[in-house]
Amino acid sequence: MSIPKTHRRVVLVRRPPGEPAESDFRVEEAPVPEPKHGEVLVKVHYLSLDPYQRGRMRDAASYASPVGLGEVMTGGVVGEVVKSEHAGFKVGDIVEDRLGWQEYAIGGGPSLRKVDPSLAPISTANGVLGMPGMTAYFGPKKCAFVKDELGFDACLDYKAEKDLDAALRAACPNGIDVYFDNVGGTITDAALRNLNFFARVALCGSISQYNATAAEMGPRLLGTFVGKRVTARGFIVTDFAQHYGPAMRQMGEWISSGKLKYREDIVDGIDKAPRAFIGLLRGENFGKLLVRLG
Amino acid sequence: MSIPKTHRRVVLVRRPPGEPAESDFRVEEAPVPEPKHGEVLVKVHYLSLDPYQRGRMRDAASYASPVGLGEVMTGGVVGEVVKSEHAGFKVGDIVEDRLGWQEYAIGGGPSLRKVDPSLAPISTANGVLGMPGMTAYFGPKKCAFVKDELGFDACLDYKAEKDLDAALRAACPNGIDVYFDNVGGTITDAALRNLNFFARVALCGSISQYNATAAEMGPRLLGTFVGKRVTARGFIVTDFAQHYGPAMRQMGEWISSGKLKYREDIVDGIDKAPRAFIGLLRGENFGKLLVRLG
Repeated sequence: MSIPKTHRRVVLVRRPPGEPAESDFRVEEAPVPEPKHGEVLVKVHYLSLDPYQRGRMRDAASYASPVGLGEVMTGGVVGEVVKSEHAGFKVGDIVEDRLGWQEYAIGGGPSLRKVDPSLAPISTANGVLGMPGMTAYFGPKKCAFVKDELGFDACLDYKAEKDLDAALRAACPNGIDVYFDNVGGTITDAALRNLNFFARVALCGSISQYNATAAEMGPRLLGTFVGKRVTARGFIVTDFAQHYGPAMRQMGEWISSGKLKYREDIVDGIDKAPRAFIGLLRGENFGKLLVRLG
Repeated sequence: MSIPKTHRRVVLVRRPPGEPAESDFRVEEAPVPEPKHGEVLVKVHYLSLDPYQRGRMRDAASYASPVGLGEVMTGGVVGEVVKSEHAGFKVGDIVEDRLGWQEYAIGGGPSLRKVDPSLAPISTANGVLGMPGMTAYFGPKKCAFVKDELGFDACLDYKAEKDLDAALRAACPNGIDVYFDNVGGTITDAALRNLNFFARVALCGSISQYNATAAEMGPRLLGTFVGKRVTARGFIVTDFAQHYGPAMRQMGEWISSGKLKYREDIVDGIDKAPRAFIGLLRGENFGKLLVRLG
């Protein structure tokens, strides 16, 4: 395989206060790096765009460090080893890691993992069989929830619905026992008002708030947790990293048997990544958003 | 003991939208009732005023039913059996139950319990050795917290402090691992912003919100629970009713040995109950608020 001298990558050049603009990013040409001892050079096939990346654009403490100005944007990728100085990986291996928005990347850290192409298409290593899938798997804790509930009984558009409380009551006439929060804001307010006694709330993310310039105001609803004995728990998927193996095999089986469905939205070319990311935060994508490179 | 023909009691006559007024209550004269089979007549010595009673003045679903208009206000009392038609209680027994704001009351329900006067002064049966004490005991779950922490390292006045975030940071320079929420509102917002990774929040009550006419607005902070893996859990003390016995013995020992301190604010006369209750919601009391009768 012929490896070019230069490649393209996307760096962060400005921290947007609200919604990101394409001008907050720069697509630049850079030399393809050489792997050192213990490293591999990866040709990226798919770049994963995910809501958490908005958080890395802020210069604020989080569970992970922010992306520095002038640095390559962070993001999961799946790609192919094209040079290897690492005893555990050989040329041709398909690998996955958080190597950033770029066409070629150096890998070799402890989170670099081989992807089994026989399990499912390799693009799923950033989606249903990657971080987002693991998040869904471990978030509700009980696999039965994923199996039985992800046939989806109802769907509400929290941006279009005028009376979310009424819409939720109609969709859940017996109230809500488990709420998995990926959205935050008004839909979460409505869900919390409709919780049942001893309900559980898995706090996974709050995409509706990621572009907020300051803490958005909403009703204070924690008080309602008292009488209803609600348990709310925040989690990050990496807390369950030691259980990924069995989870991926289980989900791979569910995909094969048709029990678990997934959908991907694919954009071509790294220069499209900034615009696609802006659209992600607007909810323009339908499935897992990926950028296909090269 | 001579029992009068009539006694005084306090009934709810109006549901206040915000802060209660004395005119929302009526002190009225009524015949002293006669106990039927399985019942006792209790001469009330102490009436307990507690923030949850504000919730019972609302015509809204809660974990307990509201007080009806014209009905005696709900509240815990400790008193003396003066007539008994109940095999389990004799004249002279000191008992405790939620028998309402009145000088004489009929008891005999499953929650009527004998108070051991040798354990501590009987007024504590509505305080440190009653519902509020049990709430504190079971809320943090670990007795070590009650033992070690209730020496209080710092105290903030959430109504007087101008910058609660800064004051909390100064008081808790290493952040907050456990937050026991009895207040809600701005102090809770500040506490939530200062939580540590894997912090726990026991949601017990939110007195600052009980007079609110609508859900008060505040910053939406559930999103911060994600990265910090916070667990928040609401509870009601009665969830632990089967464990009260050992808890009260343990706390009685701590009181005797001086490890556990308590303080009472006592108001005399049932006609003072409405004004005292209004003051309770304003935070005017210092210790456990009791009305001494007879």
